[in-house]
Amino acid sequence: MAQRNCSYRLSELANKLNGVIQGLDCTIFGLNTLEKASSNELSFLANSKYASQLADSKSGAVLVTAQMADKVTGSALIVENPYLAFAKVSQLFDWRLADSEESECLSASIDPSARVHSSARLGAHVVVSAGVVIEADVKVDDRCVIGPNSVIQTGSHLGASTRLEANVTIYPDVVLGRECLVHSGAVIGADGFGFAPTKEGWVKICQLGGVRVGNRVEIGANTTIDRGALDHTYIGDGVKLDNHIQIAHNVNIGEQTAIAGCTAVAGSTKIGRHCTIAGHCGITGHLTIADYTHITAMSLISKSIIVTGQAYSSGTGQEKHGDWKRNVVRFRQLDNMARRLKQLEQKIEILSIEGLNK
Amino acid sequence: MAQRNCSYRLSELANKLNGVIQGLDCTIFGLNTLEKASSNELSFLANSKYASQLADSKSGAVLVTAQMADKVTGSALIVENPYLAFAKVSQLFDWRLADSEESECLSASIDPSARVHSSARLGAHVVVSAGVVIEADVKVDDRCVIGPNSVIQTGSHLGASTRLEANVTIYPDVVLGRECLVHSGAVIGADGFGFAPTKEGWVKICQLGGVRVGNRVEIGANTTIDRGALDHTYIGDGVKLDNHIQIAHNVNIGEQTAIAGCTAVAGSTKIGRHCTIAGHCGITGHLTIADYTHITAMSLISKSIIVTGQAYSSGTGQEKHGDWKRNVVRFRQLDNMARRLKQLEQKIEILSIEGLNK
Amino acid sequence: MAQRNCSYRLSELANKLNGVIQGLDCTIFGLNTLEKASSNELSFLANSKYASQLADSKSGAVLVTAQMADKVTGSALIVENPYLAFAKVSQLFDWRLADSEESECLSASIDPSARVHSSARLGAHVVVSAGVVIEADVKVDDRCVIGPNSVIQTGSHLGASTRLEANVTIYPDVVLGRECLVHSGAVIGADGFGFAPTKEGWVKICQLGGVRVGNRVEIGANTTIDRGALDHTYIGDGVKLDNHIQIAHNVNIGEQTAIAGCTAVAGSTKIGRHCTIAGHCGITGHLTIADYTHITAMSLISKSIIVTGQAYSSGTGQEKHGDWKRNVVRFRQLDNMARRLKQLEQKIEILSIEGLNK
Repeated sequence: MAQRNCSYRLSELANKLNGVIQGLDCTIFGLNTLEKASSNELSFLANSKYASQLADSKSGAVLVTAQMADKVTGSALIVENPYLAFAKVSQLFDWRLADSEESECLSASIDPSARVHSSARLGAHVVVSAGVVIEADVKVDDRCVIGPNSVIQTGSHLGASTRLEANVTIYPDVVLGRECLVHSGAVIGADGFGFAPTKEGWVKICQLGGVRVGNRVEIGANTTIDRGALDHTYIGDGVKLDNHIQIAHNVNIGEQTAIAGCTAVAGSTKIGRHCTIAGHCGITGHLTIADYTHITAMSLISKSIIVTGQAYSSGTGQEKHGDWKRNVVRFRQLDNMARRLKQLEQKIEILSIEGLNK
Repeated sequence: MAQRNCSYRLSELANKLNGVIQGLDCTIFGLNTLEKASSNELSFLANSKYASQLADSKSGAVLVTAQMADKVTGSALIVENPYLAFAKVSQLFDWRLADSEESECLSASIDPSARVHSSARLGAHVVVSAGVVIEADVKVDDRCVIGPNSVIQTGSHLGASTRLEANVTIYPDVVLGRECLVHSGAVIGADGFGFAPTKEGWVKICQLGGVRVGNRVEIGANTTIDRGALDHTYIGDGVKLDNHIQIAHNVNIGEQTAIAGCTAVAGSTKIGRHCTIAGHCGITGHLTIADYTHITAMSLISKSIIVTGQAYSSGTGQEKHGDWKRNVVRFRQLDNMARRLKQLEQKIEILSIEGLNK
Repeated sequence: MAQRNCSYRLSELANKLNGVIQGLDCTIFGLNTLEKASSNELSFLANSKYASQLADSKSGAVLVTAQMADKVTGSALIVENPYLAFAKVSQLFDWRLADSEESECLSASIDPSARVHSSARLGAHVVVSAGVVIEADVKVDDRCVIGPNSVIQTGSHLGASTRLEANVTIYPDVVLGRECLVHSGAVIGADGFGFAPTKEGWVKICQLGGVRVGNRVEIGANTTIDRGALDHTYIGDGVKLDNHIQIAHNVNIGEQTAIAGCTAVAGSTKIGRHCTIAGHCGITGHLTIADYTHITAMSLISKSIIVTGQAYSSGTGQEKHGDWKRNVVRFRQLDNMARRLKQLEQKIEILSIEGLNK
């Protein structure tokens, strides 16, 4: 169902991918894993550690590198980068991209149940689904698709070919670039968390900045990107954010950085370009993280990272609960242990000298 | 308000629960805690450590085991498992379940503001609330309830008696079994997080699989379950997922496993049956977790667990901030400390032998 | 766009803030940072460590304390607490607050696409946006604003001047106080996570309590607050909850406590007043946390905190991945290391005594 109902000759795919066929040309009706592919499906081998699966695979053809091609028993489509080739073919079989290509031929389609303010400007070939609300002064460029029950608030702007899935919320003064994809439940532009403490309680600092998102950014389901306090929050071109991510006010994320699910970035932190940040990390506020930094899962980052291209971690690894309990008790004694170790070293130094002196 | 306006004789409840009354029969108008229950409410004692509350309780009757019954001063309803009995009685007083029983007698009720595609097939006694959007080729079986402003996209399928609360999003090609309950803000079927790296940036791998959810599954508020890349993401029968959970693409969760809030499971991990996973855990990708595994709160699980029925943990316990800072510094010296400890052991071994030799 | 199109004389602001002008009076059209402000904008210096920015700032005027005033080269507005003054001025320039003041003059405005049940009671000057669903017996007090596609379910109640942003979900039997602000994607009143285990699987405990939220509470985007099992879940006056927070059933949060993003509080835990809890923390169930407790980022709190005003932490700090891997291995040996350290101390004690005896 999610694969588009279409087919390609293997030779046609070879053309699109700058690849070379080994074995017979055949017709490909879809994509699948080596393990599950049938004789009219294409699979791929991106990692040589799965090469043993080639022997048993029933797939019609396999995307492989030249080095691995001799291990393929059926047809092979030899390419430089099989994973990238797989990514490109996946787009041919995606029902959604197929739809948007077809929508080129359509005039704008606005569901009668959508509420579009008279001052909003919609480009050509825009699709506005049922229940959508578009407020005053919004600008939606050509070929955008707005999913059911999504809301775009006053003065915001979507670049060409950007797609909002269902139930997305775009607050006022949010600008998304071209070819972005925003998943359901994402909230872009809610207030940053800013309050001045007083004896009578917290006084709200109104969040007067907006959000500026670059081109080709993907924003996962239920991810939140807060608006800035005075200046904007910035997300660079090509950034990929997974689900449940929290981006606080005035964060700046450099281009092509990818962040996995449930990671939170606190206010005013600047993350470099091409970083890869694993899931469930916490990055505290007002830090600078260098380009090409890698952070492993569930790490707490509370100091700036200056040198580029390094990997960082925190936390402890999994243990059986009983062992862990004993070690956790010792963690609380660690400073004490370190001092005692130092004392022992001094005592033994003295004992050794005494021994020598005898 | 949330308790149904109804009443039961204690003897009637005894019948339903296979229990025995000790003391007077009475009329029960609702459920409450031992501490707060009044003389026409039923309470329960599931854990003997709260037995001291029996003396002061004003409750009309108490669900207890035979062993504890002599400590109840008023009426007691003696059952084998008071907590299970309490669960069953809670269903009698729930306004929502009451509604759906009544809806048996109703014909399908579709709010005029809902947008239901002409190709969608709705079963008998289905309730479609205001603002709901149901796209093409969707199938909604008998007695389903779809809450306000929820969206069900192309070709998805809801089994009989499944309930979506308000503002739920079901992407295309998602199948939910019978008697599921999905809370508000949940997103089922958003794209898995898959991209091929290239020099020019990330290239999207279209997520062509769907999601398959079993029967009697509960999915918490704002929880996300991503669609598979090629194959589906699978959630087994009876699985219970709390709020803010992230289930990545191609995860497979075995039946009756329960996961608490804010836990994330990365791509392609297979979790066994009857596992209990506490809140705020991170489970990395491509792992296998054995049946009946228990994981404690905020643990990072990054290696497969082979033996069934074991408990695992990671992290450190809470400390006063000042103590913690000192110990955290020492954690960074831990490998160094371990080497120095080894050296000391060797030196003392030598000193002891020298001492003996003198 | 997000700043209201208006202006104030600096002397006018001095009046509102009980401040004193140093230098020329001027006209202020907006707020900005010291770094970015232009000659018709106001900036502020709340932290003396940024004082060096004063020299280069082009801002028309700066909010400062008397002690720092001599460092300002242009106009200064001298106040006791510049951060609080900044908070107050931010409200003058917020387009949203401006709107709601103007709405005083409006009669109730209900978008024709909203579905409001005939038994719901709406106060004066209430705004109900497009696509909103308000169910039976709901009460919405004066001057409330309900954002697009939000849902308020049966019997719930919003106090005066409370604002729901777009796509908020309020379940039945939820009461919000006055002047609350609830951001998009927040879900208040979903079922707590309660099930009785049986051999045949989990049996649901219907969640019969509701949620009670005090006055002037802010609830962040995609935050969830579950309904109680029997009694309610309580959120005190002036509490501030950031995005992605999970508040489980029967939690009780004391007034003026602030919690940062992605923190989860498990069932029945009672958090005191004026606590500050950083982001990504996990607090387990059935605990009591004293007033004025501070918890640092990503801490696991699994024991009650009795003494007020203390700071707590857990976890380890960031390290280069290679160093961390070595130390994590040693963490698993920590109990063993502690025992060996103890043995060494005993051996050296003996060696020292032997040495003395020779």
